Amino acid sequence: MKAYKALTKEELVQLKGELEKAYADVKGKGLKLDMSRGKPAATQLDMTMDIMDVFDSSSELKTEGGMDCRNYGQVDGIPEAKKLMGDMIGVPAENVIVCGNASLTIMYDTISRSMTHGVLGSTPWCKLDKVKFLCPVPGYDRHFGITEHFGIEMINIPMTSDGPDMDMVEKYVSEDPAVKGIWCVPKYSNPQGVTYSDETVKRFAALKPAAEDFRIFWDNAYAVHHLYEEEQDSLLEILSECKKAGNPDMVYEFCSTSKVSFAGSGIAAVASSEKNLEWFRKSMTIQTIGYDKINQLRHVKYFKNAQGVAAHMKKHADLLRPKFEAVLNVLEEELGGLEIGSWIKPRGGYFVCFEAMEGCAAQIIEKCKEAGVILTKAGAPYPYGKDPKDSVIRIAPSFPTPEEMAQATDLFVLCVKLVSVQKLLEACA
Amino acid sequence: MKAYKALTKEELVQLKGELEKAYADVKGKGLKLDMSRGKPAATQLDMTMDIMDVFDSSSELKTEGGMDCRNYGQVDGIPEAKKLMGDMIGVPAENVIVCGNASLTIMYDTISRSMTHGVLGSTPWCKLDKVKFLCPVPGYDRHFGITEHFGIEMINIPMTSDGPDMDMVEKYVSEDPAVKGIWCVPKYSNPQGVTYSDETVKRFAALKPAAEDFRIFWDNAYAVHHLYEEEQDSLLEILSECKKAGNPDMVYEFCSTSKVSFAGSGIAAVASSEKNLEWFRKSMTIQTIGYDKINQLRHVKYFKNAQGVAAHMKKHADLLRPKFEAVLNVLEEELGGLEIGSWIKPRGGYFVCFEAMEGCAAQIIEKCKEAGVILTKAGAPYPYGKDPKDSVIRIAPSFPTPEEMAQATDLFVLCVKLVSVQKLLEACA
Repeated sequence: MKAYKALTKEELVQLKGELEKAYADVKGKGLKLDMSRGKPAATQLDMTMDIMDVFDSSSELKTEGGMDCRNYGQVDGIPEAKKLMGDMIGVPAENVIVCGNASLTIMYDTISRSMTHGVLGSTPWCKLDKVKFLCPVPGYDRHFGITEHFGIEMINIPMTSDGPDMDMVEKYVSEDPAVKGIWCVPKYSNPQGVTYSDETVKRFAALKPAAEDFRIFWDNAYAVHHLYEEEQDSLLEILSECKKAGNPDMVYEFCSTSKVSFAGSGIAAVASSEKNLEWFRKSMTIQTIGYDKINQLRHVKYFKNAQGVAAHMKKHADLLRPKFEAVLNVLEEELGGLEIGSWIKPRGGYFVCFEAMEGCAAQIIEKCKEAGVILTKAGAPYPYGKDPKDSVIRIAPSFPTPEEMAQATDLFVLCVKLVSVQKLLEACA
Repeated sequence: MKAYKALTKEELVQLKGELEKAYADVKGKGLKLDMSRGKPAATQLDMTMDIMDVFDSSSELKTEGGMDCRNYGQVDGIPEAKKLMGDMIGVPAENVIVCGNASLTIMYDTISRSMTHGVLGSTPWCKLDKVKFLCPVPGYDRHFGITEHFGIEMINIPMTSDGPDMDMVEKYVSEDPAVKGIWCVPKYSNPQGVTYSDETVKRFAALKPAAEDFRIFWDNAYAVHHLYEEEQDSLLEILSECKKAGNPDMVYEFCSTSKVSFAGSGIAAVASSEKNLEWFRKSMTIQTIGYDKINQLRHVKYFKNAQGVAAHMKKHADLLRPKFEAVLNVLEEELGGLEIGSWIKPRGGYFVCFEAMEGCAAQIIEKCKEAGVILTKAGAPYPYGKDPKDSVIRIAPSFPTPEEMAQATDLFVLCVKLVSVQKLLEACA
């Protein structure tokens, strides 16, 4: 295929006419597809339905230690759930607190607590003139939503194929005491699918923060969410790296079974140093008498251990892979060589990230919407919803079927072409 | 029985000797009982075990409207759970948000949100020099724990048999703009079992707060927790009263099924005006993608409606009543007429509140503990754990068996007598 920028004005005008006709045809089909959120499909959720058989009215809802899971108590989670979640991310059970159904809530509560009570006795952030967070971009919109909600200033850090630009991270963290945290999705990152390299993790662990209450918010959301059995990314375990580097308290790690069991009814956990967890417990003891321990026990009985989780995730992968490949194939076939966009083939996670020509993303998304395909809002992967180059588009293949994904991606590439041609023609004018 | 204060010094000395001997005997028995927390007994939790049969792997986990409860979404709860919880407290479903497993967490989050974001756009409380809460006493220690945790100054308001002293409440609320809230357990109050009179509720609804962001925290924890079928307290519905009085936004009402289904795995809700709920949702949308909807649906399928809840609570009452009566009978038989303590016979809720002679509570609790019976810590029902008269003791009969309760109360009355005699002798000296 010939790159669009190598086309003459006349060729572009002709192409534009053809694309407009094709777009009008697709529009007539009345598509109605949603690729906006990383939601599991019903068929994927069906794979966990056996978990509903784990307990019945004759079950003894007790932990191995004899605790009655039906009653109040055990604010930081049952021991066996700590072990299960710890094993999923390679962290000892004693460094884990298991909470309710969403790691997002733990992250929100962690920021909220830092605002009102500080971090290990530091000045509460709400008493400071300025609090800043580093935000590797593109990133996860709900992370940025939390920091924005609390009036925390967000600073974009570009992502590379090894993770965030660590030169920039080191500079900000070591020089500016107002920088209190950084949002990371270190494995199969949202939305690019990038896994941080060992060197990146080591540089994170070795940070020398200007602020004593600086913390890495390590959202290991896709720890076990591989797409291919043979080509799995691996991630250095950050807690032990931080410990080795003399920064044992510098990281909070989050994980959940939201995309392992049920998106709305999983269990979530935070892992950190004993000192940090003790600080968490001080507030948690005021906030709750205990999270839902029956659901914690249900997950333990169902998955049994990390091997059980891995076996389950293989089934998910078999379902998800064709959806991802449907997208990637169409992208490759239709856009390969045109030089009007780029993308990374992810080995896990929930997204394909498409980078369009500068200034094109919002229009592409709008065109897709007009023809019935909903994509994540333009700018969503950036703080304040502002993509400075207006070029990044997050595609979430998990919810539709592979056939629907192929259909939706056909429309998508058509819109990419159309908007790109218009852009190039504008440049000619 | 002759009142202790009518005894001569010699009679008191002799009595003291007898009581000390009896105490030494009981101590030798090696009792080990816990009456400290309002925890349901295992037999009570067993009554809800059928809820574990509501779903199995073949269930369709959908709402009537077709929403898949397994997936993300519906941040404020499924419609049928809103209706169930609303019916329990006499509030329309549209005024209800259903959350996770604990109303305590909703209350904590509500205060936390007010600290960081204010109330309907008011100045965040963390930016104010002083925030105060009114605390009817004796009250619930976990309420006071929340306000203490956030550095909110707590002001004691004495309870009467009709509810809090409303003259004081009106004065504080209308005169001091730093007073931002009041903790209430309006029905079968913790720990006294008092239900607010209609006049009290109306006076609450008609408050004229100096602070625009003053709110009543109406913890209707025992809305359906009657002990007797024939003698049930009833409580005026506060939301509609506030609306009638022109204060539609002044109250947040909380409730849960913690003491209906499972203490650790129930569902909890908050009810308020549409304006307040909209404000809640603004933060909730950032904090979570949705609470555990499967557990919400499980509760709806199990209880069906408010009648189902009421029928279930009748079974609880049959189990709890003998425990309460065991306590009340011993108190009456052993302490009636001695004038060394008083108590109210509750018609619902989870506690019996004993008022000892001034300066005796801590010692009575200590003596009980020495002989193997754990009571709620002295001072717990007061802000900062400080009972100004050192006289209130909260007894929680729900966890032990009736026989154990009788045994424990035997020890309790013995300790009351012993400490009271000592006190009276000190007064003679």
